[in-house]
Amino acid sequence: MTGKALLPELWTEILVPVCAVVGIAFSLFQWYIVSGVKLTADRGASSESEDGKNGNEDYLIEEEEGVNDQSVVAKCAEIQTAISEGATSFLFTEYKYVGVFMVLFAAIIFLFLGSVQGFSTKSQPCTYDKTTTCKPALATAVFSTISFVLGAVTSVLSGFLGMKIATYANARTTLEARRGVGKAFIVAFRSGAVMGFLLAANGLLVLYITINLFKIYYGDDWEGLFESITGYGLGGSSMALFGRVGGGIYTKAADVGADLVGKVERNIPEDDPRNPAVIADNVGDNVGDIAGMGSDLFGSYAESSCAALVVASISSFGINHDFTAMLFPLLISSVGILVCLITTLYATDISEIKAVKEIEPALKNQLIISTVIMTAGIAVVSWIGLPSSFTIFNFGTQKVVKNWELFLCVAVGLWAGLIIGFVTEYYTSNAYSPVQDVADSCRTGAATNVIFGLALGYKSVIIPIFAIAVSIFVSFSFAAMYGVAVAALGMLSTIATGLAIDAYGPISDNAGGIAEMAGMSHRIRERTDALDAAGNTTAAIGKGFAIGSAALVSLALFGAFVSRAGVQTVDVLTPKVVIGLLVGAMLPYWFSAMTMKSVGSAALKMVEEVRRQFNTIPGLMEGTAKPDYATCVKISTDASIKEMIPPGCLVMLTPLIVGFFFGVETLSGVLAGSLVSGVQVAISASNTGGAWDNAKKYIEAGASEHARSLGPKGSEPHKAAVIGDTIGDPLKDTSGPSLNILIKLMAVESLVFAPFFATHGGFLFRIFS
Amino acid sequence: MTGKALLPELWTEILVPVCAVVGIAFSLFQWYIVSGVKLTADRGASSESEDGKNGNEDYLIEEEEGVNDQSVVAKCAEIQTAISEGATSFLFTEYKYVGVFMVLFAAIIFLFLGSVQGFSTKSQPCTYDKTTTCKPALATAVFSTISFVLGAVTSVLSGFLGMKIATYANARTTLEARRGVGKAFIVAFRSGAVMGFLLAANGLLVLYITINLFKIYYGDDWEGLFESITGYGLGGSSMALFGRVGGGIYTKAADVGADLVGKVERNIPEDDPRNPAVIADNVGDNVGDIAGMGSDLFGSYAESSCAALVVASISSFGINHDFTAMLFPLLISSVGILVCLITTLYATDISEIKAVKEIEPALKNQLIISTVIMTAGIAVVSWIGLPSSFTIFNFGTQKVVKNWELFLCVAVGLWAGLIIGFVTEYYTSNAYSPVQDVADSCRTGAATNVIFGLALGYKSVIIPIFAIAVSIFVSFSFAAMYGVAVAALGMLSTIATGLAIDAYGPISDNAGGIAEMAGMSHRIRERTDALDAAGNTTAAIGKGFAIGSAALVSLALFGAFVSRAGVQTVDVLTPKVVIGLLVGAMLPYWFSAMTMKSVGSAALKMVEEVRRQFNTIPGLMEGTAKPDYATCVKISTDASIKEMIPPGCLVMLTPLIVGFFFGVETLSGVLAGSLVSGVQVAISASNTGGAWDNAKKYIEAGASEHARSLGPKGSEPHKAAVIGDTIGDPLKDTSGPSLNILIKLMAVESLVFAPFFATHGGFLFRIFS
Repeated sequence: MTGKALLPELWTEILVPVCAVVGIAFSLFQWYIVSGVKLTADRGASSESEDGKNGNEDYLIEEEEGVNDQSVVAKCAEIQTAISEGATSFLFTEYKYVGVFMVLFAAIIFLFLGSVQGFSTKSQPCTYDKTTTCKPALATAVFSTISFVLGAVTSVLSGFLGMKIATYANARTTLEARRGVGKAFIVAFRSGAVMGFLLAANGLLVLYITINLFKIYYGDDWEGLFESITGYGLGGSSMALFGRVGGGIYTKAADVGADLVGKVERNIPEDDPRNPAVIADNVGDNVGDIAGMGSDLFGSYAESSCAALVVASISSFGINHDFTAMLFPLLISSVGILVCLITTLYATDISEIKAVKEIEPALKNQLIISTVIMTAGIAVVSWIGLPSSFTIFNFGTQKVVKNWELFLCVAVGLWAGLIIGFVTEYYTSNAYSPVQDVADSCRTGAATNVIFGLALGYKSVIIPIFAIAVSIFVSFSFAAMYGVAVAALGMLSTIATGLAIDAYGPISDNAGGIAEMAGMSHRIRERTDALDAAGNTTAAIGKGFAIGSAALVSLALFGAFVSRAGVQTVDVLTPKVVIGLLVGAMLPYWFSAMTMKSVGSAALKMVEEVRRQFNTIPGLMEGTAKPDYATCVKISTDASIKEMIPPGCLVMLTPLIVGFFFGVETLSGVLAGSLVSGVQVAISASNTGGAWDNAKKYIEAGASEHARSLGPKGSEPHKAAVIGDTIGDPLKDTSGPSLNILIKLMAVESLVFAPFFATHGGFLFRIFS
Repeated sequence: MTGKALLPELWTEILVPVCAVVGIAFSLFQWYIVSGVKLTADRGASSESEDGKNGNEDYLIEEEEGVNDQSVVAKCAEIQTAISEGATSFLFTEYKYVGVFMVLFAAIIFLFLGSVQGFSTKSQPCTYDKTTTCKPALATAVFSTISFVLGAVTSVLSGFLGMKIATYANARTTLEARRGVGKAFIVAFRSGAVMGFLLAANGLLVLYITINLFKIYYGDDWEGLFESITGYGLGGSSMALFGRVGGGIYTKAADVGADLVGKVERNIPEDDPRNPAVIADNVGDNVGDIAGMGSDLFGSYAESSCAALVVASISSFGINHDFTAMLFPLLISSVGILVCLITTLYATDISEIKAVKEIEPALKNQLIISTVIMTAGIAVVSWIGLPSSFTIFNFGTQKVVKNWELFLCVAVGLWAGLIIGFVTEYYTSNAYSPVQDVADSCRTGAATNVIFGLALGYKSVIIPIFAIAVSIFVSFSFAAMYGVAVAALGMLSTIATGLAIDAYGPISDNAGGIAEMAGMSHRIRERTDALDAAGNTTAAIGKGFAIGSAALVSLALFGAFVSRAGVQTVDVLTPKVVIGLLVGAMLPYWFSAMTMKSVGSAALKMVEEVRRQFNTIPGLMEGTAKPDYATCVKISTDASIKEMIPPGCLVMLTPLIVGFFFGVETLSGVLAGSLVSGVQVAISASNTGGAWDNAKKYIEAGASEHARSLGPKGSEPHKAAVIGDTIGDPLKDTSGPSLNILIKLMAVESLVFAPFFATHGGFLFRIFS
């Protein structure tokens, strides 16, 4: 009934690492090109290191502006150094805590999983196929711990490198803006690509190597092998907790704090160098939007791969030891890197930006192009990487699946991602009526702005939820939980491009901040603003992707968990499940309450410090004295670390407590409840915040008759819009995206600890019965 | 194994109607006492009609103030007439649409249910016990339609009478406030009691009579009898849709519209007679908070009774034809009326209000007293009204239950209600730190106020959800879905008291408005403000009850639905259920987006009209010309009717569309998803709004050092608090409470149409397979 994949095992063993290495090489090459922009005060030169193919010089409508002002270069370099040092100092402080957490949690994993068979070193019958012998539970404990550490380290490395390149690129983008908006765009975009490709390729390579190394020990026991590999997903995802939540609190504490005093009280512009919190604000963009987003998406990628692998290991791929088919998830990612590479070349070398209004379409085209090419890529991989017919484990039974059905599963995820991206754009870009309506409601003050903004966020969940539901229905119907996992992988297959356009945003945002701080001309600031505006929209699209993939990933992990825990039905018509569902649906609210309150408290601390500096440093407001940036950076750093502990504990402890005391049925309910509730809260929070941000920008830009009737800056409607923007900050950059982590991390943690819960879980019910 | 209840059938047949009649008589007696306050301009006399037992005259610390000013009485009477006419005109306009809807929907019920067996008049084998013969499906269609109409009419009548007494009592409360705060309190409270007892007793009586009349036709076919009775719940609940959603939009459109121009732009106080929207605002309190809340709770009451009855009919009660045990839900409600009667006497005749600070405790004591006495009442009813052991239908099997276990089910619901009430109070009363923290965050402006307020709302769901989860776990474990239904009934058993203290709020609010409009002295306004402040907190408690009971009710209805539809498991691990769950969890967001946008749009229309009047009516601002109140009333009326159509369609059509096209499994998922997600959104929205309202009042009242540091009225923190209050209006009075209707109505509709879906449902999947 089930054959072998067309692609020989050897080719698979070559193809995957080669694609990963190509991705890394491409990323380094982009870095090399960006480094061509010199930050030393001899000449702000640029494209000499390129072969000039871009030819932007001939077409760009912008003129060069102030390229020979050497003092500006020195100033930019100085600001960049401050931002880079702030970001590095935050990350290193964070890593200290991460280190402690990793050691502790690695010990928990080892002890809990080791206890399943009382730390016995004897082999045991396998969980699913009782006739064969598997490695002891102790081995699972050891290797899960190792893969956990590897996942965590890979995530940390990816986030760190992303932050490094971002803080390397921001000032270079500013300097290139002197030579035209097109040139600046290319620098920012290339830098984003460095981050995207490094992360995608690194994640793939480490996973590939880990599987092959573990295989040396496990041999033909693929069930145990891929069960241990799930630790990789847990490692990646738990670092994302630090990145997303800690970074999210950092960035918004700084941003809200800077705005509340600077914009509202002192009436000075955003990114004004007199504002003591301005460096912290710019650091925040890097640690929150770059390192945080990177670790979030890396987590999704690692988890969906692990979920697919663990289900595959007990399906015909694993049972028949078909290595190529087994590595189908990695093959998808490998081809994804190649597809994204071609897509990137289109933006950097084939097409050119000739006008400001071409920036946003250029970024959106990246998504469309990568999705179209990737569809063909998936078709090829499904054809050569899978047997024409095979079976997939479906909660106790084996379901027959055809390779074209699996192609549809991956493709539906990929296209659902694109739809979610575009719907997100529709609801958060000020080119369309929803945001314009919100802006219009500012006429009657901040209250109506908030009411309309919240309503917009609620409304924006409708189509994404239908898109996710259709993906789930198709993939689940065709190939059970394996289908859902590969649908998630499909959505993430173009992750390199997604991250490139996503990282582009904060880099441009920083570039604008540096231009303002360095006192560059109004025209330069206009150019960086144009880059930034496009970045805002792509940031929203990126968040849409992140949430959509998190929903699919966490369902797949949930499926893998119940399979592993030996649960065959999760029946809502039982008290254990229904209370789990209800309490699970509550968790996103609890978690959001914590993260929002955290941002609020941290921002208030920042406000006090900024006020103190304005009041005690003579000449600060007049620009004759320099503010003490470092103290603000330290406040954000300390507050974010301290404030992330309660929400972090909620996420990490809930599965352990529920699983141990109430058992796997209730835990299943909790996971399902938090998934279906959390995804709504996350989407609506992100989009509400994005809409407020762009409604404010809409009024500021005054690009239409309608927008001008609401402005200018400082008008009553604009003030109302600023209030909305400030409220939206924690929603869109802290509590909203952090929910991705909540739903994914609880699921992957449950999966890793499934053997423990299956053996020792449900303590409370056991003592009462 | 199963015996008979101790209480003979005849006694049950006497006890239930007698309790209902006692309740109605008590209600009329209270009305008679309130009518002792004369609204004619001869003398503002009062307690002469009472026997003077209250003796308030001797104790009240307040002095009489302006009791002999006859012009004030005339003015109050005039304002009261305007409010009453506005409310009546709104309700009659609403009833026109309600009438059309009722005819249409009655036709749908008849046609859909009649089609189950092709309109055959032949008897059929019963659904559960195939060996016996039941009445034809056509009979179910006819009687379901009749009970639907009866439920709808009862709900309409209850809402209308409640509104009548409230608009009758508001001016009388104002006038009594001249004689002291204690007297005014008693009038407002008695009027609330009229509403509470009328509604509880009416609902019980009509249900009782309907059952007995239907029994003449159905005879021993109790399965068919109680299946038809579910129409009563659907009727009550669909009217609640009009009451809650329409009334909610009405009240907040008027309130937000009045505030945005009056308080914010023109800087005139709330309820200033110069504001053209002021009458509409006061009308809104009556149609939204009185008629809307009344129909909502009546719907919950009717639905939980129906859910319990339909499950009981296929349990041993129904199988053994034990009429007393069968009517256990009605016995609980009957005893509830007596318990509430005693409780009310405590407030009106036993204790006395001697100081302003005693008002809130007096209201809270009502809840505690009724809960404590009712616990004993439940014990008695469970002892005499149930066999010591019996069986309950549990999704295909019969589960053995003891009478003391059922006592625990009812009691856990009752006490969970109290806990939810007090947690709600903690999070929304400005006597505690959460609201004070929110008020404090106003220092840094509206943005932090909103951030902290949203975080408070999210946080406030935690304990209520655990309380509901524990109730569900206990009641579900002991007695399956019957347990959940009676737990809901337990929570609602003190509905008469709950409604009394709930209706007290808007009456006091109106009384304050009338005092302001009639230009009464500052001291009188202080007294009505004190009444109103206590009313705000009880309103929040009432909302907590309404949501908590809605959650239990809708779960019970869900259970009855799956039982009736023949579904035995609702397995999250199937694609049909999981997509239903996801989409269902999205519905509260869609629905809230609609209702919030509705309020926003309607408020903007109101703003335009109010501005127009201020700009075009000369002398309006100076108080020399009268505004055109009627146009504002008409705008609110028209807008609310028009704007409620889309959310109404969403609620009414979703079960029909999902059930018909996707089948009962997906519909089960949708119901479960909307339940677990909706209850969170509802609680957080209501509490966020309540907290903002009271944070504003906290600053205005300036009762502590801290509060004074934030005030006075007009200070920057106060302005920020007003913005929060305005945002909270639609959250707490429209979108939040409307979600109760969403989750209950979809469930009861599914239950009524269950036979249809079981026969014709899942059209889409059928044509594809």
